[in-house]
Formats: sequence, C-alpha cells, structure tokens
Amino acid sequence: MTIEEISDLLDREFPQIHDRGRVYEFASVEPGRAVVYFSANERHLRPGGTVSGPTLMELADLAAYVVILGHIGPVALAVTTNLNINFLRKPEQGRLVATCTLLKLGKRLAVTECGIAGESGELLAHATATYSIPPR
Amino acid sequence: MTIEEISDLLDREFPQIHDRGRVYEFASVEPGRAVVYFSANERHLRPGGTVSGPTLMELADLAAYVVILGHIGPVALAVTTNLNINFLRKPEQGRLVATCTLLKLGKRLAVTECGIAGESGELLAHATATYSIPPR
Amino acid sequence: MTIEEISDLLDREFPQIHDRGRVYEFASVEPGRAVVYFSANERHLRPGGTVSGPTLMELADLAAYVVILGHIGPVALAVTTNLNINFLRKPEQGRLVATCTLLKLGKRLAVTECGIAGESGELLAHATATYSIPPR
Amino acid sequence: MTIEEISDLLDREFPQIHDRGRVYEFASVEPGRAVVYFSANERHLRPGGTVSGPTLMELADLAAYVVILGHIGPVALAVTTNLNINFLRKPEQGRLVATCTLLKLGKRLAVTECGIAGESGELLAHATATYSIPPR
Repeated sequence: MTIEEISDLLDREFPQIHDRGRVYEFASVEPGRAVVYFSANERHLRPGGTVSGPTLMELADLAAYVVILGHIGPVALAVTTNLNINFLRKPEQGRLVATCTLLKLGKRLAVTECGIAGESGELLAHATATYSIPPR
Repeated sequence: MTIEEISDLLDREFPQIHDRGRVYEFASVEPGRAVVYFSANERHLRPGGTVSGPTLMELADLAAYVVILGHIGPVALAVTTNLNINFLRKPEQGRLVATCTLLKLGKRLAVTECGIAGESGELLAHATATYSIPPR
Repeated sequence: MTIEEISDLLDREFPQIHDRGRVYEFASVEPGRAVVYFSANERHLRPGGTVSGPTLMELADLAAYVVILGHIGPVALAVTTNLNINFLRKPEQGRLVATCTLLKLGKRLAVTECGIAGESGELLAHATATYSIPPR
Repeated sequence: MTIEEISDLLDREFPQIHDRGRVYEFASVEPGRAVVYFSANERHLRPGGTVSGPTLMELADLAAYVVILGHIGPVALAVTTNLNINFLRKPEQGRLVATCTLLKLGKRLAVTECGIAGESGELLAHATATYSIPPR
C-alpha cells in the first residue's frame, strides 16, 4: 500500500483518531520503515504543556500499524499483542515525528521499533510493538 | 491520600482525562493496591465496538498513578518511565476494571502491575509500569 | 502433564540447564500456575554474593515454559517470543521461588506472569513472558 | 573508558562470565554505541543447535552494560532495572554480534537498545534495557 492508500484506509476505518481535528499526518512508507507526524492540541497536553504519555503510546502504536499495513496490505486485520515503551525526555511543544522500522515480518507476528523525536531531532520516547497477523 | 483526595487531585490537575465526559471512576485505594473503573464512550471504540488498545494503555497508566499517589502523597510529581502491556483478549463493551498493585516502592522508582478485566472478570490486558519518583 | 513428566522432559531435552549441578527443582504445576525452585551455585553469583540478573531471566523463562507445558503437553514445541523483566530488589543468598501464572493460553500465543521471591517471600523480580505455540 | 579498560574491568569484577571459556569479546565502544561478539559453546545450545534465549538475554544485558561503562566510567555501579527482549529468528550457529546504542543517559537512568545479529547480519533478537545509575 502507498502512504495515500494507508491514510485513506485509516480515515475510513478509524475515524476516531481524527475526532478532534487532524493531529496525525501519515508522511511516508517505504520498505521496512514508516514516518508519522503528530501535532498536539489541547487535549493531548499535561500541566506544563507537555504531551501526555498515553498520547506517545498511541502515536507509537499507530506508526507501527502504518509500517505493517504498508507491507501486508489492507486485507489483513492486524492487532497489537504487546507494546513496550520507554519515556526518555519530556516532550516540548511542537510537531512530533514517529519513525517506525520493521524488525520482523513473520507469518504470525510482526515486530516493530519506533522512535519518537521532537522538532530538534532529540529522541523523546522509544517503543517496540508486536502485532499478530491473521492467516493470509 | 484517600481515594477522594486522589480523585480531586486528578480532576484538578489532569482535567483532560475527563474532557469528553467522566469515563474514569476512582474506586478504591488501599495498601499496595488501587482499583479504577472505566466506561467507554464513542471515541474509545474501534470498528466492531471494541475498546481501542491506546485506551487500555491510558487506563493502565492512570491506575498505576493512582496506586502510587495513594502511597507517596500529592507533593511528589511522579512520571512514567516505562510501560509494557500485553493485550490478551478483545474487550467487550461495558465497564472495565483496572486493578493495580505496587510491586516496589523505592526511593527513585515505583513498579506496578495492572490487570484490566471486563464485566465477566476475564482478563483483557496486563501491564507493568514504572514511575520515576522525585526526591522526597 | 504432571510435574514429574515435565521434570523428566526437561532433563531429557534440555540437559544443559543442569550442566553444573541441579539448580532447578520443578515443584508443582496446577491449573494456571507452576512453581519452580532455584538454588544458586558459584557461577550464578555476582560480586557481593547476589544472584545475577541473567540468572533471574533464565528462571522466569523456564518457569513460564513449565506452566505452558503443563497445559499443552509435550507434543508442542513452544518458543519464547517476548520477555519483559523488572528487577525490584537485590537477591539475597538462598533458595529462590518462581511462581508463574498463565494469563492467556490462546491458539497461537501463551502469555505468562512470573514473580520471583526469596526465602522471606519478598518479591525480587517480576516478569511477563510470551510464547509462540505451534499449531496443535 | 576505552574498550580495553572495560574488558579488563569485566574480567576482574565478573569472572563468572568467562567461567567456561571466553565466549564474549568486547569489540568496541564509541560515543553512544558498543559492540560485543559472542561465540557459543556447548552449554549455550538448545536441541537443534540453536543458541538459547537466556544466552541472548545475557548478551544484550552485557552489551548494554558495556556502552554505559564506556560513558560513565568505572566508578559507578549501575544495575539493570528493566529488560525487554523480542526474539525474532532462530539463531544459527556461529558468532553473534550485539550492537548496543545509548538512547538516554540521564542522572538516574540509562536506557539502551540492542540488536543481536548473526554472521549474515540478519537480526535475531532486539532488546531494550534500563540501568539505574548511582549518584555520581
């Protein structure tokens, strides 16, 4: 799937992710890698103006889904089975960039790694996520 | 802190968690354990009516925070450093119950374990979360 | 499988785990739970006489395998796909007790949770492990 | 610390890691990254000649320690607080290469990421490890 097809699919199947304005931009997908941008609005912020932890988890999970869709196509319904995230630095305001790589694409499991960086390029969080892939 | 004091603190400091209606109910906190209820609304659901993965992650993270607040009090600003979650079964509609226990309360780190169950009591997800605790 | 059958199977198929003396004792397996004892010898210790981290990881992984074998039987070749461990307290010398519960036994994945305690009952480490189960 | 100093320190302080022959070779440490080689002997193998999971966990944990020592020096006693590992492919026989990068070096916590590859360069396992760093 191209990034446009993935973006259309997500808009159609998961409209909730945009329910308060478009915060995600599906930037690119290429062999083994996808990039998703995120622009926080009020509801993602915690006291002090930092983006909340659950917002970063959702971003990592979504970017993992994008890279998997890019490789297995729209027919498959993949679901997250495990997500592990380390929060490294307090996110500053501004756009976040999630870069997700595919560590393994097996018959049953896909394992991904995601780094989330701020505008300056500094790593704010790092996650690994495993998706279960239905029989193709 | 009592569960009422924690509930007041969260309402005051983290109003975003209730920004679309009160979905969380802080049920109890006792030595080593806290219970939080969650009632999904439209924005937490995925196609087929199941509660989304990020919603479960947020619930686990919040329940971990509640049990830690119950033990270290309101003065400390604890932040999540690691969260690991296994998604076990597809959540059915209805109220979810997150039960979070304190595995360790150290000087610098608190480690918690959370089970999230549905109305029937069946475990839907299981998470461990680590918080960094500022010097007291 | 009974605990005796599991113990025999492990002795036969994984003789390496006993290659420096019998450090593991497979204590019990019952629905949803298994218990494994561990008695460290010289090679498991670190400076100061504490049991090493990798020793605790191996114990958690093995106890998870025992509870899974107890439920799916000897025919299946299960392999670990993910292990997450939190080290909580410095292990004292003496026997360790790993108690492992089955969070989920699905068609493809089994998810387990293990607590490792010392003689006093205090929790030293906590792990979750996922095994991939071959088609039965 | 240079890689020679780290190698000497580990030989001196952790002689157990070499108790059955030198299986680890500390190849390099540079800003933000360390490389450790591993050559299995009989005790690391499982039926079929594959390197065991606990062996890979120990390698990841050790490589994480090397990159941290390279940055904070020999005075500090760092201990693992969390390790998460995904097993991706069955390790073939032959030398393994663990490449570990430093995601964060904070005042209290260091977070690392390790890829373990075989001779062919294919990724066999991927781990993240967090160490607690004592006050410097």
